[in-house]
Amino acid sequence: MDIETTYNDNNYTIHIGWGILEEKLLKYTAHYGTIHTLVDQSVYTLYSSTIDALVYQPIILEGGEKSKNFQSYAHVMETLLSKGIHRNDLIIVIGGGASGDVGGFIASTVLRGVDYIQIPTTLLAHDSSIGGKTAINSAHGKNLIGTFYRPQAVIYDLSFLKTLPQEELRSGFGEVFKHALLDGEDTVHSLMSKTTENIQLESLEPYIISGIRTKMRHVTQDEKEAGIRRYLNLGHTFGHAIEYNDKLPHGVAVVLGLYIMMHVSNSNSNAQVFELSSYYRYFKRLGYPMDTLKHMDVEKLIALMSKDKKNQDDTSIGFILMTEIGVCHYQQIAKEHLIQLLEELKETL
Amino acid sequence: MDIETTYNDNNYTIHIGWGILEEKLLKYTAHYGTIHTLVDQSVYTLYSSTIDALVYQPIILEGGEKSKNFQSYAHVMETLLSKGIHRNDLIIVIGGGASGDVGGFIASTVLRGVDYIQIPTTLLAHDSSIGGKTAINSAHGKNLIGTFYRPQAVIYDLSFLKTLPQEELRSGFGEVFKHALLDGEDTVHSLMSKTTENIQLESLEPYIISGIRTKMRHVTQDEKEAGIRRYLNLGHTFGHAIEYNDKLPHGVAVVLGLYIMMHVSNSNSNAQVFELSSYYRYFKRLGYPMDTLKHMDVEKLIALMSKDKKNQDDTSIGFILMTEIGVCHYQQIAKEHLIQLLEELKETL
Ligand SMILES: NC(=O)c1ccc[n+]([C@@H]2O[C@H](COP(=O)([O-])OP(=O)(O)OC[C@H]3O[C@@H](n4cnc5c(N)ncnc54)[C@H](O)[C@@H]3O)[C@@H](O)[C@H]2O)c1
Ligand SMILES: NC(=O)c1ccc[n+]([C@@H]2O[C@H](COP(=O)([O-])OP(=O)(O)OC[C@H]3O[C@@H](n4cnc5c(N)ncnc54)[C@H](O)[C@@H]3O)[C@@H](O)[C@H]2O)c1
Repeated sequence: MDIETTYNDNNYTIHIGWGILEEKLLKYTAHYGTIHTLVDQSVYTLYSSTIDALVYQPIILEGGEKSKNFQSYAHVMETLLSKGIHRNDLIIVIGGGASGDVGGFIASTVLRGVDYIQIPTTLLAHDSSIGGKTAINSAHGKNLIGTFYRPQAVIYDLSFLKTLPQEELRSGFGEVFKHALLDGEDTVHSLMSKTTENIQLESLEPYIISGIRTKMRHVTQDEKEAGIRRYLNLGHTFGHAIEYNDKLPHGVAVVLGLYIMMHVSNSNSNAQVFELSSYYRYFKRLGYPMDTLKHMDVEKLIALMSKDKKNQDDTSIGFILMTEIGVCHYQQIAKEHLIQLLEELKETL
Repeated sequence: MDIETTYNDNNYTIHIGWGILEEKLLKYTAHYGTIHTLVDQSVYTLYSSTIDALVYQPIILEGGEKSKNFQSYAHVMETLLSKGIHRNDLIIVIGGGASGDVGGFIASTVLRGVDYIQIPTTLLAHDSSIGGKTAINSAHGKNLIGTFYRPQAVIYDLSFLKTLPQEELRSGFGEVFKHALLDGEDTVHSLMSKTTENIQLESLEPYIISGIRTKMRHVTQDEKEAGIRRYLNLGHTFGHAIEYNDKLPHGVAVVLGLYIMMHVSNSNSNAQVFELSSYYRYFKRLGYPMDTLKHMDVEKLIALMSKDKKNQDDTSIGFILMTEIGVCHYQQIAKEHLIQLLEELKETL
């Protein structure tokens, strides 16, 4: 399956499928000088024979988040330059969202920009195939340094996902679920019916595809994040706080954040938007740590949310809420009221 | 005098004049949150009272080229982030071309891009007010890391130039002269008549303005450097080699490169394009080290030129030549023939 992006210009194709890497990659490499490959260390350990058959002497990125810093950036940059990288060369980046972020940042700044192709190997990385964000982390926070720079193509070979640890799959699924919520009721119910007991990799492809399309719809209308793009933060205001506080994987925390969002959306509207108990049981069956919510320190989490750069008001916190599945709006909620809502939620658990 | 850029989009104004800094800057700062200032150390030493009257607690860049590296980039980046820089803030960069390059790179990558204003303080930096190139240096060469990112405005207050050391003035003048050559015979003769014995700062404004316009013409037609933008490299192929070999300031080496270009252009055309001896005497009067050419090691310089990334052919070297003043073309010259031409030139000196 190929998805074409729908920006005003500089569009690219996202190829999605099983075992497509070699065939799709060869379509692109012919147009370039030398091919330089950056690959996540763990991915290379698992797939060295596949990768070595396709490319020559890849540059290894320390696994995951560990490579999103200045040192790693400078090291990979100098390595590429020592190989005499040229403007007509191509960089390919194989790995999860972290490798994609640092690899994209390198591609966007080496020789002031060299073309690159993203090869995501995690479920979460479906999310970074759209949006053109590249990044490394600062001592002062995640993703504070980077560029907007689009790849020439994304080749999303789902076979890589087979080796993904359960926890990473669950984390990536959090964003898949969020995209389904943004898409609407039909998508949510269909996704839930295909994953009643656990996250079946084989049945995910259509939801990854609709997730990418949903993100694309939000991003292309609003590349610089002023309007509807922020709906992509659904579940994230609370998610980020609990991710930080309880050291949970990003997408796992997002699922807890989505659950809070459901509760707040219900209280906020006259109709019942979400049937909470069925979502609770569903998330629990898939292995999400729902008990964390029962023991949450409400005041502390609210203090963390207030620090979030997106919140600039002292007495209230901004949330993305839903009036029906698929229909978002942004709302400031007074902290006092929020405390009450969260304490209320704890009691139902 | 205000020059508007003529890109397809994201245009900005280059304000040029004497003592204009405060008035022009205030037009912009009102539209932003916090103003963050980066300033070249030597410039701050000379102008601290002016600068402190305008902005709050500037961040100091180590003087000149010393700040164009990873360490300085990371340090300034973390400093800005520790101050809680926000997307709606403004960065202003005060200094020569080196400060502009690293400051622009920081502005383009902090929070994936924050607006910035360039305040050039050297003559050479008229060159970097157009083109949108930002950069730091690699261990493998100058300007190999960076972005294309345009400022919101350039405020070129010529009063800063009064404290510029003679050698820096001479270096900047090399690019002014190059731009005059690209502009045509009238501009060259007018510039020479205003600077017969030395570089009179007071008379340079019109040539800086026409230089910026000339560069803009070349750049806007060709932002990614495939066609006529490369005529801006006039004098630079040889200039870079002699800059590296004889440790001369960039623009000083460019003047020697322009002189070689004149000689090669003459030999290459039937008519005499340049009256060499008058240019020789003129450059010598202005203090350029023309004797360097008499003693040049031709074979070594040619070897250096062959290494230049823009030359990919083993037996010849590409040059920008002129068939008349203001009219360029690109030509490959066989190394053998080049050796002969340069030895010939040495004998005339
Ligand atoms: N640019 C964007 O738009 C965007 C969007 C979402 C997330 N992100 C970023 O992505 C990162 C999170 O993404 P992620 O979860 O993919 O992180 P990741 O890249 O850190 O990968 C998670 C872990 O899985 C391992 N791994 C990767 N592929 C594997 C495979 N096929 N088999 C076995 N192990 C494998 C990695 O080594 C790592 O340890 C964060 O840094 C986040 O900021 C960016
Ligand atoms: N981005 C572009 O398009 C572009 C174009 C041309 C040159 N450049 C870059 O610009 C740099 C060269 O520019 P430069 O010559 O301005 O270099 P620079 O910034 O290093 O300045 C030269 C010296 O003059 C000092 N100085 C600056 N302003 C002064 C003043 N008003 N009074 C006294 N001293 C002052 C500086 O401290 C430094 O020591 C190079 O790094 C080059 O790569 C970039």
